[in-house]
Amino acid sequence: MSAEIKILLNELKTLNADLYGKDFLLTWEKSDAELRAVLAIAELLKGIHAKNIPLDMFKTGLAVSNFRDNSTRTRFSFASACNLLGLAVQDLDEGKSQIAHGETVRETANMISFLTEAIGIRDDMFIGKGHTYMKEVAEALDDGFKQGVLNQRPAVVNLQCDLDHPTQSMSDLLFIKNHFGGFDMLKGKKIAMTWAYSPSYGKPLSVPQGVICLMTRFGMNVELAYPEGYDLLPETIEVAKKNAQDSGGSFNVSNSMKSAFKNADIVYPKSWAPYKVMERRTALLEDGDHPGLKELEKECLAQNARHTDWECDEAKMKLSKDGRGLYLHCLPADITDVSCKQGEVSAKVFEKYRIGTYKEAGYKPFVIAAMIAACTKKHPAKVIETLYTSGLKRVL
Amino acid sequence: MSAEIKILLNELKTLNADLYGKDFLLTWEKSDAELRAVLAIAELLKGIHAKNIPLDMFKTGLAVSNFRDNSTRTRFSFASACNLLGLAVQDLDEGKSQIAHGETVRETANMISFLTEAIGIRDDMFIGKGHTYMKEVAEALDDGFKQGVLNQRPAVVNLQCDLDHPTQSMSDLLFIKNHFGGFDMLKGKKIAMTWAYSPSYGKPLSVPQGVICLMTRFGMNVELAYPEGYDLLPETIEVAKKNAQDSGGSFNVSNSMKSAFKNADIVYPKSWAPYKVMERRTALLEDGDHPGLKELEKECLAQNARHTDWECDEAKMKLSKDGRGLYLHCLPADITDVSCKQGEVSAKVFEKYRIGTYKEAGYKPFVIAAMIAACTKKHPAKVIETLYTSGLKRVL
Amino acid sequence: MSAEIKILLNELKTLNADLYGKDFLLTWEKSDAELRAVLAIAELLKGIHAKNIPLDMFKTGLAVSNFRDNSTRTRFSFASACNLLGLAVQDLDEGKSQIAHGETVRETANMISFLTEAIGIRDDMFIGKGHTYMKEVAEALDDGFKQGVLNQRPAVVNLQCDLDHPTQSMSDLLFIKNHFGGFDMLKGKKIAMTWAYSPSYGKPLSVPQGVICLMTRFGMNVELAYPEGYDLLPETIEVAKKNAQDSGGSFNVSNSMKSAFKNADIVYPKSWAPYKVMERRTALLEDGDHPGLKELEKECLAQNARHTDWECDEAKMKLSKDGRGLYLHCLPADITDVSCKQGEVSAKVFEKYRIGTYKEAGYKPFVIAAMIAACTKKHPAKVIETLYTSGLKRVL
Repeated sequence: MSAEIKILLNELKTLNADLYGKDFLLTWEKSDAELRAVLAIAELLKGIHAKNIPLDMFKTGLAVSNFRDNSTRTRFSFASACNLLGLAVQDLDEGKSQIAHGETVRETANMISFLTEAIGIRDDMFIGKGHTYMKEVAEALDDGFKQGVLNQRPAVVNLQCDLDHPTQSMSDLLFIKNHFGGFDMLKGKKIAMTWAYSPSYGKPLSVPQGVICLMTRFGMNVELAYPEGYDLLPETIEVAKKNAQDSGGSFNVSNSMKSAFKNADIVYPKSWAPYKVMERRTALLEDGDHPGLKELEKECLAQNARHTDWECDEAKMKLSKDGRGLYLHCLPADITDVSCKQGEVSAKVFEKYRIGTYKEAGYKPFVIAAMIAACTKKHPAKVIETLYTSGLKRVL
Repeated sequence: MSAEIKILLNELKTLNADLYGKDFLLTWEKSDAELRAVLAIAELLKGIHAKNIPLDMFKTGLAVSNFRDNSTRTRFSFASACNLLGLAVQDLDEGKSQIAHGETVRETANMISFLTEAIGIRDDMFIGKGHTYMKEVAEALDDGFKQGVLNQRPAVVNLQCDLDHPTQSMSDLLFIKNHFGGFDMLKGKKIAMTWAYSPSYGKPLSVPQGVICLMTRFGMNVELAYPEGYDLLPETIEVAKKNAQDSGGSFNVSNSMKSAFKNADIVYPKSWAPYKVMERRTALLEDGDHPGLKELEKECLAQNARHTDWECDEAKMKLSKDGRGLYLHCLPADITDVSCKQGEVSAKVFEKYRIGTYKEAGYKPFVIAAMIAACTKKHPAKVIETLYTSGLKRVL
Repeated sequence: MSAEIKILLNELKTLNADLYGKDFLLTWEKSDAELRAVLAIAELLKGIHAKNIPLDMFKTGLAVSNFRDNSTRTRFSFASACNLLGLAVQDLDEGKSQIAHGETVRETANMISFLTEAIGIRDDMFIGKGHTYMKEVAEALDDGFKQGVLNQRPAVVNLQCDLDHPTQSMSDLLFIKNHFGGFDMLKGKKIAMTWAYSPSYGKPLSVPQGVICLMTRFGMNVELAYPEGYDLLPETIEVAKKNAQDSGGSFNVSNSMKSAFKNADIVYPKSWAPYKVMERRTALLEDGDHPGLKELEKECLAQNARHTDWECDEAKMKLSKDGRGLYLHCLPADITDVSCKQGEVSAKVFEKYRIGTYKEAGYKPFVIAAMIAACTKKHPAKVIETLYTSGLKRVL
């Protein structure tokens, strides 16, 4: 057994976290031990996969994906994660289904779960909706399992909702943890989660919300910065404040990208829509008010256009710690002169950190797999150890 | 070996049914022993799955799904069934394929089958088409296999056609068999298969047709009731009559929901379109006559609206045997005040039986898997016994 | 071990070809030994599959399919191939993804590959684009693998581009090799790759290009024939000329279907669009010029219509070697009076060779699987031998 794997297995056992039978919806609902357990499992899976050892802890079983918004990387991350564990993905494509015919969430949740072990949901378009929908699904599964409809209780994994994007923020966290050499090294580090200009509109708020709520738990100094009017959901601001207090870190909000970048060890410049706009958009989408949506888009793009200086360029990067701060992005970034005329980040800065952002994204399949493993196994460490010592090869 | 599993395995061996190399298209083409064998296999698979033992009797192989109508539950049931047996589902999405380019059924059937073990087809929109199409596919596969084009003959499973919906009716049957304590207990029981009001139109006839043709084989007293004009296909009526005669049950048709419910042990109130309307619809769809279809829909909804009293409410349920008859539905039901203003069943009645209908649906993945297993294995009992006694775990 | 399998395994070992870590994009980039190795692996996989032995050399892993044009048979062939080897297919549906949002090929290639072992791409609509795109993907994967973003380098397989259609031509080759009794028997055989009339337009050029470039390597006398204006890409003509010279075969171009058929051992009559039209179409598609495309289609169909006599009928087949030449087609064929009023081939000729064309197509899943196996295994012969002698059954 390699030393690294051994250490992670011991850490996992020592944490004694119990997520069995639960879901992974919001990081702030989880204890530190639970988060650490998921992160340890993710690193175990990544390390064992690299050693060409199979991790198919399910011999058969379905994983249902439900994407209520477009997705490439999350779709592939989920598919990769499920395949790694031995599950087959079946997409719940609501366009092709009878859901439009007035079926209740409660019923559908059970109908798709008779042989299902995990359900991944992305629902990030409507303020006040995504997380609520996931909880509704989870409650329906609880009921179905308790009543004997289902042989097993599938784990629900949040692949992005209106509040949080835990598979993203946990991947970000693993990347910076390994970059700086351990969770302890994150203490006192400054991370600037800032808005950035983009010529598109309607980008979800869950990435910045997820980042400020997670990073504040690890003793980091989190500075959130955005132009006036681009507030996040108040409840996530409250979570970030409380977490910072508890962990001995700090949480500050400003309206200056430069002040946020100043001495930052890490910068995360990324566009999002103003909360108020997302609320109006939710109402318009629900009413199917297409002219209203067009009007809102125009208005919002005009508002964005007042802040084209919120670009992560070389000058701003110089403000960061020793001029060598680490750049993060959830991808795809709006890169000036590459993917758009003017965007979130200059081509030069992005190119410098490009491979880093790819590696950051590379944790996601393993984070998703870890969430599923943690929520479906009573003793994930034991299961992983059994597979690791099986002597089998994943690829002949 | 658990007693229950042992009994089922013995029953399966004793039945000595041989479906190997055949398809499962219509229940009335199958002998009693063949039906019983499929039902026994379904219960074996369900029981063994609950014991966490893998049932992957295929190590690799494709299962093709071909849904010519929208579907959630049948799509997931098919995917679950195939995954349970070890097959990977590949959807034949005719929109994305070259089928539109003038390809023959004969050719496509072979092209998708080089490594395919099962093909599930749903084609229920056109009177006179669905079953015919399935037979065409089956004949093409026979030819391809005989001529050496295919290494194996995939089994075709009817996931709903214009005549029958065997995976549904067999699931219904297993549910009531277990509810009442055995097939023998079904003898002499009254089941009311009745039309019910729905604000939608064009619902297929295959559910009621499948139910009257299957339940009459088990000595049940089947009463079919619908408002004038909502006849089923004459050939299925003939099958039901003959079956009732052979099994010592009875088959009656009336135009009164109340008379059907009277003393019924089981009620199955469910909307369908009148046969004549479906015939006209078939012609209009073939002609692509959209104004004609709109007109027909209006006419049909108006016809439906004359029968809003065909609702399964508490008053009608009181007419059933001891006021405690069992309510069945293939789901999704049109529930008054839940999924529509006025529908097939009152919210109170549905809620009382809701979990039951979920369990009823829960048999479907195993029924589909059983059909595939029965049609692709020379000795299904032996295969299942081998897997059951393997000592392996499905989920670590 | 069966004699046939033993011979193929020995041949494969003796060839000593090394495709490990490479892609399969164009046959003319591969050495004779490399082509022979892929063909030997394809026959090994086909033979072992027929013996009901599992070939899942991957226990888990994704295979990504990216179809930028409609497809049935190639989609199913790819899915079958991947499933045979143990890989799960995940479709990169660009409509559902964020690719439209200005993402670079470089990034997407990495994002979909964290746990991916093979990527199959079909991109045949735009002259000068498909092969270029595949190379771009391959370079991005090289970079990602080198930089530690990816644990493994997925193999890219060309499922049809603007230049070549190697999975088709290699299947054609295996079919005729077995028909005539070995590669040696192909020497000196005449194959007529001819244009044929079709009432559709815009058919890709990759099939004829692939065929003339591959068959000229095996000492065959290849005659390409088409009406004036239906030229192929000049670079592929150059490849065919050079190959013929090197192999001791010949390559001729004419404008007469009859002269091409004369004494031909094999005929391959198949429609394609004129190169110049495809070039104009590429420009119009890129500009989104729909009226221009309509106009071009009209013009092109009118041009086609001047050559309805380019049909493979019984009279022309009589010209072939002893009147018994072998008919090939990549399918679906435009069959006169079957799939269209007038097409590439008469119903009588097609019916005579129909089963043959199905068998021709039946090699494709195994050719694709062989390409993946060859490009992902250091010692494919050893892996196949291990699986072959495992004593396991693919289907219980």
